[in-house]
Amino acid sequence: MDNSQYKLLVIDDELGVRQSLTAYLEDSGFTVYDAPDASTGLALFNELLPDLVITDLSMPDTNGLTLLQQIHDVLPSTPVIVISGAGVMGDVVQALRLGAADYLIKPIVDMEVLVMAVYKSLERCQLLVDNERYRLESEKANIELKRHIAALEQDQRAGNFVQQSMSPVSPFTADQYICEHSIIPSLYLSGDCIDYAYITQRYYAFYLADVSGHGSAPAFVTIWLRNVVAQLVRLKKMLVDFENQESALLSLLELINVQLIEMGINNHLTLTIGVIDTETNKLYYVVAGHLPLPVLLTNGKARFLEGSGKPIGLFEGAKWEVTQLDLPYGDFSLLLFSDGILELIEEKELIAKEELLLRVVEESQGHVDSIIDIVEVKNIEELPDDVAVLSIRKVV
Amino acid sequence: MDNSQYKLLVIDDELGVRQSLTAYLEDSGFTVYDAPDASTGLALFNELLPDLVITDLSMPDTNGLTLLQQIHDVLPSTPVIVISGAGVMGDVVQALRLGAADYLIKPIVDMEVLVMAVYKSLERCQLLVDNERYRLESEKANIELKRHIAALEQDQRAGNFVQQSMSPVSPFTADQYICEHSIIPSLYLSGDCIDYAYITQRYYAFYLADVSGHGSAPAFVTIWLRNVVAQLVRLKKMLVDFENQESALLSLLELINVQLIEMGINNHLTLTIGVIDTETNKLYYVVAGHLPLPVLLTNGKARFLEGSGKPIGLFEGAKWEVTQLDLPYGDFSLLLFSDGILELIEEKELIAKEELLLRVVEESQGHVDSIIDIVEVKNIEELPDDVAVLSIRKVV
Repeated sequence: MDNSQYKLLVIDDELGVRQSLTAYLEDSGFTVYDAPDASTGLALFNELLPDLVITDLSMPDTNGLTLLQQIHDVLPSTPVIVISGAGVMGDVVQALRLGAADYLIKPIVDMEVLVMAVYKSLERCQLLVDNERYRLESEKANIELKRHIAALEQDQRAGNFVQQSMSPVSPFTADQYICEHSIIPSLYLSGDCIDYAYITQRYYAFYLADVSGHGSAPAFVTIWLRNVVAQLVRLKKMLVDFENQESALLSLLELINVQLIEMGINNHLTLTIGVIDTETNKLYYVVAGHLPLPVLLTNGKARFLEGSGKPIGLFEGAKWEVTQLDLPYGDFSLLLFSDGILELIEEKELIAKEELLLRVVEESQGHVDSIIDIVEVKNIEELPDDVAVLSIRKVV
Repeated sequence: MDNSQYKLLVIDDELGVRQSLTAYLEDSGFTVYDAPDASTGLALFNELLPDLVITDLSMPDTNGLTLLQQIHDVLPSTPVIVISGAGVMGDVVQALRLGAADYLIKPIVDMEVLVMAVYKSLERCQLLVDNERYRLESEKANIELKRHIAALEQDQRAGNFVQQSMSPVSPFTADQYICEHSIIPSLYLSGDCIDYAYITQRYYAFYLADVSGHGSAPAFVTIWLRNVVAQLVRLKKMLVDFENQESALLSLLELINVQLIEMGINNHLTLTIGVIDTETNKLYYVVAGHLPLPVLLTNGKARFLEGSGKPIGLFEGAKWEVTQLDLPYGDFSLLLFSDGILELIEEKELIAKEELLLRVVEESQGHVDSIIDIVEVKNIEELPDDVAVLSIRKVV
């Protein structure tokens, strides 16, 4: 440490002792002031407010013990080292009781002991100061943190409410089709998002998206996604381009990819989006980095549909591919899931989890409520991730 | 403090000294162990890991200085108080250099000095431990806080993007009317919200809302509000109830009041909402706790429209009243503001601020951009509050 920053005050009526103390401490780098008696010492103390005082206990004008108390009346935290003759240990004990930081016995044979006592006393002061500072800092940060957490709870409540108020009607039935869905959010705000619409009495458009991250940002992204897709569908009749179903889907994905990158946040999303043309009985769909893959259930048998593609919001200029599928003419169920469902299936390997998911779908006969019952989502207190399920059933 | 929780180890080859030290420390409440030589002492130290060691410096088997080093090799933080004969201060200095916590000179005249030395050494240990704990706590809380703040920035960016993507087109022109608006958000996410729509080629419906609070929650509320009003207007043709314009407005307000209370957050909102019937040239409007009041500009003269009512989201079963106004048949501008605008007007009293706002409107001729230029919103680095301006101008 830089000793010169410390102001020490030496008070002793014996000139020789005072001078040798002062000289040694100055040689050690401290800034030293000295006084020949208690009253001069106290005046100097009041003027300088030194970091440490070294005082003789027996002086002609005022007792050193009285001086110690007077100093502590002004600034209780100032360390005072007392010096006493060997024969008067009672005074030392009294001084220590009154809060003296340390003591030295005359004659001071080795001045290094004095310097060590000074260091120790200054260190104790510093420790107390640091302690108080850290304690206050920690307290302040914790209060701030609590405020943040309380605000987050408000955000969460408002965010959940908005997300739910924007959710599509479930079940929604039209033209032999039943759409139903469920999103069970984890402790955090949900980044899962489902929407579907029956457009121009012919097309079932639907998607299930999963935005990465936790908190308000992904929730805002789900709202934005819902809004931008709905606007495009409503205003521009996108997705229901009679001429070219495929290019409509691809333009939509490219547009939300550009916008999500433009948003400049660290959240991306995976998505499965599709359109069923009820007239031609064809399904057009895109899988954008999303797992698990869509599941098709026909005649009691479930299988994954093929598909792969990049997530959205990560790669500029990314392209996707539309898969076309002729749907069965009889009853079928098409099921989409967020990957939260896989964490609830008690298998270790992904491939085994996926196999089991197919069995769950078969057992559920494509009903969302049954799926949720079978994987026991509702018995889990703290879901590791949101669980979203979308089912589109055709009942002829 | 409870001394019995502290284990002290006394090592001295002189039986008398050892016994008197041990007895005094036990009387002071400490748990004391003792050893007659350095090697027994070190073995006991390794077994007990005491909180503090008091050792004689000169013992027959091992030098006390060596023992001090051996102890610190095991546990450097253990305070060791050394006891030395009066004639060998050199050893004391050496011990202090090697990290002894304190020293005592034999004969120990007053045992209280010993106890004080023990207290001081234990206190220093405690201070160091506390220091480390507080420092780590403070560090941890600050890291957590930084994480929260980084997340908030993400939320903010996503929230702003969503809010802007949901903003109505500005300017929007139809049937002699020009609607334009601007929202300049403060550092936080905006709680201001403007929307307008031209419905069934006859009605201009519009509102300006200001949600209390900062952060994501009010931003979610603005999104919810926009969504719920748009849905009601789109799906239920509310606000354009041809039979009864007034009851349509009131049902809307009562519904959003119920829902906002149900949301269970601490944010409420103030709002001015209105509908212009372009056929009858009538304005129907409600002021729900919102200031400043709407401003009507005709023939270069601006005035506040009357209106008052409760804010939304605070009072269950609250009711509002619709004010009807015959609009001028020539050109006019209707202007709505959030209260952020008043903070930018350099007058102290509200009444003076409002007077000046009328002059600003007159000078601007009802143009949003001019108003923003005049109050110099864009020159202010950190807006205290969002500033929202909505202008509906009729140009015949």
